[in-house]
Amino acid sequence: MARVVVDVMLKSEILDPQGEAVLGALPRLGVNDVASVRIGKRVEIEFDQNAQNVEEQSRVIADQLLANPVIESFTVSIEAA
Amino acid sequence: MARVVVDVMLKSEILDPQGEAVLGALPRLGVNDVASVRIGKRVEIEFDQNAQNVEEQSRVIADQLLANPVIESFTVSIEAA
Repeated sequence: MARVVVDVMLKSEILDPQGEAVLGALPRLGVNDVASVRIGKRVEIEFDQNAQNVEEQSRVIADQLLANPVIESFTVSIEAA
Repeated sequence: MARVVVDVMLKSEILDPQGEAVLGALPRLGVNDVASVRIGKRVEIEFDQNAQNVEEQSRVIADQLLANPVIESFTVSIEAA
């Protein structure tokens, strides 16, 4: 069974308020040496045993459904064949 | 500069409605051989140059701030030292 991970992150020039909020909360945990926090999505897709063109299909899913290409970029990695 | 990635996913026994919604939309893209989709968070943390105990601090951040240990599990990976 092919397992694919798609990571979707905001492009670096796009403000990430959720990451900023986490960064702002770190001193309360006693953590003072973090420069930046960025938060995105991790999507785990499991294909059927006999699926073909798994990477290509994953790119279609990521591009058309998971990521907004205006503000987000994504990476596709095949974890197990 | 140390870069740490924390992946936070719902535990496998917890229902993931967002993943189910994506799974349900796939046939419209012509993708019919996906067995499951799970959606979680990917958090990229950049530490200052001279930060110490980066992995330990990342585990504290993940455990106390990023993940809800009742329903979520997390993994911490150091990407660059």
